[in-house]
Amino acid sequence: MATLTQLNPQGRLRHLITLEGLGKELITGLMDAAERYLTRPGALPARDDSLKGRTVANLFFEPSTRTRASFELAAKRLSADVINLDVDMSSRAKGESILDTIYTLEAMQADVFVLRDSEPGIPAYIAEHVRPHVSVLNAGEAHLSHPTQGLLDALTIRQRFRDFTQLRVAIVGDIEHSRVARSAITVLRTLKVGAIHLIGPEEFMPSSIEFPGLQQFPDLEAGMRDAHVVMALRIQRERIVEGTGSLGQGEYFRRFGLTVERLRLAHPDAIVMHPGPMNRNVEISDDVADGQRSVIRQQVTNGVAVRMAVLSAIAESMGATTPAARG
Amino acid sequence: MATLTQLNPQGRLRHLITLEGLGKELITGLMDAAERYLTRPGALPARDDSLKGRTVANLFFEPSTRTRASFELAAKRLSADVINLDVDMSSRAKGESILDTIYTLEAMQADVFVLRDSEPGIPAYIAEHVRPHVSVLNAGEAHLSHPTQGLLDALTIRQRFRDFTQLRVAIVGDIEHSRVARSAITVLRTLKVGAIHLIGPEEFMPSSIEFPGLQQFPDLEAGMRDAHVVMALRIQRERIVEGTGSLGQGEYFRRFGLTVERLRLAHPDAIVMHPGPMNRNVEISDDVADGQRSVIRQQVTNGVAVRMAVLSAIAESMGATTPAARG
Amino acid sequence: MATLTQLNPQGRLRHLITLEGLGKELITGLMDAAERYLTRPGALPARDDSLKGRTVANLFFEPSTRTRASFELAAKRLSADVINLDVDMSSRAKGESILDTIYTLEAMQADVFVLRDSEPGIPAYIAEHVRPHVSVLNAGEAHLSHPTQGLLDALTIRQRFRDFTQLRVAIVGDIEHSRVARSAITVLRTLKVGAIHLIGPEEFMPSSIEFPGLQQFPDLEAGMRDAHVVMALRIQRERIVEGTGSLGQGEYFRRFGLTVERLRLAHPDAIVMHPGPMNRNVEISDDVADGQRSVIRQQVTNGVAVRMAVLSAIAESMGATTPAARG
Repeated sequence: MATLTQLNPQGRLRHLITLEGLGKELITGLMDAAERYLTRPGALPARDDSLKGRTVANLFFEPSTRTRASFELAAKRLSADVINLDVDMSSRAKGESILDTIYTLEAMQADVFVLRDSEPGIPAYIAEHVRPHVSVLNAGEAHLSHPTQGLLDALTIRQRFRDFTQLRVAIVGDIEHSRVARSAITVLRTLKVGAIHLIGPEEFMPSSIEFPGLQQFPDLEAGMRDAHVVMALRIQRERIVEGTGSLGQGEYFRRFGLTVERLRLAHPDAIVMHPGPMNRNVEISDDVADGQRSVIRQQVTNGVAVRMAVLSAIAESMGATTPAARG
Repeated sequence: MATLTQLNPQGRLRHLITLEGLGKELITGLMDAAERYLTRPGALPARDDSLKGRTVANLFFEPSTRTRASFELAAKRLSADVINLDVDMSSRAKGESILDTIYTLEAMQADVFVLRDSEPGIPAYIAEHVRPHVSVLNAGEAHLSHPTQGLLDALTIRQRFRDFTQLRVAIVGDIEHSRVARSAITVLRTLKVGAIHLIGPEEFMPSSIEFPGLQQFPDLEAGMRDAHVVMALRIQRERIVEGTGSLGQGEYFRRFGLTVERLRLAHPDAIVMHPGPMNRNVEISDDVADGQRSVIRQQVTNGVAVRMAVLSAIAESMGATTPAARG
Repeated sequence: MATLTQLNPQGRLRHLITLEGLGKELITGLMDAAERYLTRPGALPARDDSLKGRTVANLFFEPSTRTRASFELAAKRLSADVINLDVDMSSRAKGESILDTIYTLEAMQADVFVLRDSEPGIPAYIAEHVRPHVSVLNAGEAHLSHPTQGLLDALTIRQRFRDFTQLRVAIVGDIEHSRVARSAITVLRTLKVGAIHLIGPEEFMPSSIEFPGLQQFPDLEAGMRDAHVVMALRIQRERIVEGTGSLGQGEYFRRFGLTVERLRLAHPDAIVMHPGPMNRNVEISDDVADGQRSVIRQQVTNGVAVRMAVLSAIAESMGATTPAARG
């Protein structure tokens, strides 16, 4: 990413590959824009013509019903044409390189690429190769980055607590393999959060070099004490199979599952977050998932709004470089 | 379904899970509305803005090209945003419960869920859990219910015969496993049909307790004599495999296949129906399927119109409970 | 195709199954119309309401990300409703014949069928059976025909060289199995191209009876000498597996791969074409694929424009036979 700038020469957001390097003002601006895309419960979703005439291509090299649906709805509510391409490995093996696929869709006048891939580096690589008026949005990249998730998490926290500098945020689970955790950490640091506690079994902890200054806790109770925000991560089930040397699901829940009892240790106003899809009674008990502290569904609602804000910001940056259309 | 009402407090249709319990007036009203969505052959399909700004999520846990396409076109022609989610078992096994999927899409402001599932009870279960302004449409539920199919069948019959009370309807095939048969029987009884004959091999007959008052016939000729309507059901091929104890395809056709000769026994004005997809020369001969008595393609056309009518009715009931949109 | 006319009684294009039999004027008219759908790089794509209210069904019995996306975008930019049906073999085996699928979608008021199939004859067969106001577009038929590809290839050539009669076109690769080659040959002959050279290993050459008058070259250098256009075909990788009696990938590239050195033999203004997806360093070297002679991305852009032109022409022919809509 060293060579890539996500901003265009006018300082506007062109790509969203990572939250690293984006300033507090830009991030706050995106959150503000997202809030303007929220409507009252039961009301029709917000719509506008920000992407009228533009084409958004959802390229998911890794399946994802939820994130794909969120980006698809965000784009459609901004009046874009949307095409979904669920590209499986076999067609990649078939010999068409990802870059040629991108060039092909670009030649069809797709303007925005929403990419998800289990390998690191693809979104930045593609962003370095597309034409000046084309944008790349990272919808989940290996264990590294999931920037719209980081933004929606920050927005969800801000809706409850206005001052990030006073907040203690506890992140619980498989930090090492989590792009959700990495993007949350990045955005929270940019917003000058008070403290971030990383909680999980030792085997799921990142090397202490990766996040200097963040305290690690092998013990849930200690880590989440007085936390304002408790964010559970999704555990890949294949990582917690009984008898494979790692701890099993039952053991995981006993040690790290969020329960009503444990949450009494947190701050009285604490909220509980989860990026979904939840493994109920592994990462989180039913009564917490559906309880009063849970802001999990609000995260989903904010997700669409954040994606609309990002798409709309990108469309504005295109406007600055795009000649008038004829259509 | 005992605890669920499909009508909102104003008595308007909110969910469509089953035709049971819906009154004659409501059903007739939906058929009338569907007729207004029919256009002349070759003309453009009818369109309006009933679902403008709304989001319809097609959730098919069981694959179906035809019914999914019919609902998708109905929703698009009413100006809805549509997302298709073909959820396979693996992702359900992955640990995301159906209800969490629904809550997630609801949080993305999907208003209408169109559901198909091979297990019974899911649509009603979901309808009991969604928010007040959200609707659930059953697009096929196990062997139990397929209400839009029942409505389109009733409409197709009404287009030929105005007075249901004088009609004899013969349903031929695997009654026991057929949601099409159950929904047809329900709607025809509500419309006070003269007589319903159930025809098929003994192994495909429902218990006589399920449909008291309906005559069962193991013999096609006897059952369809003087019938105004002969409705063939689709037979799952795996149920009629030679040498598995049940009768094979050839034997099925010899005993229960609709042929031109046999149809001479029916009423002179008799029509032939099939929900599709047909197994030609198993349930029905080619010359009957494509012949003058066949209304099979009209059923498909009516299917889109009925789904538009149901969606539009549901949108009206939403209007009654939904605060004005901002968008 | 003998019994099928692709034109309606007014002489307008109704189906596009093959380029054979279409006159120079009609083909030139489609290319002119396609050019009007091209916009400047970076500009928004052209749009209009040619297909407003109409329904395009993409039926791909053979998977194709690129061609499906191209047709889908073309239809959406003409304001059509689009439904995608990726029909796999299993559901065909399930007993629903293709024709019943078509009749069903036709009964749902789909107006345009875009078909791709690995078997020959299906598009013409379907075109013979649809209702008068319904159109069939061939999006790739076995090894036989890919008419929109032929048109986009002709348009791409015309953008560089105005006079076809002076041109030498070299087609390199697996001619025998290539619908791209066949459609290119047909359209180039209609446009009175100067010469077409067929180049490839003997096992990939069509019988000399099929293309009388076209010279065949087992040697790339000889065949492409002074060519204005060098069109590489995609080689199915399974046809060039080492040690199966045919030549392997490396050997294929050594003998028939397009390289910068070899292209020095071509005309100084020569352009290089490929229908995609490319097998880089099998049919074509990286520096040629991405070099100055390459018009490969322009082909893709022209592809959308050509499909818009064809769809729009077909909509006009529908207008001539369709009663006014009510919607």
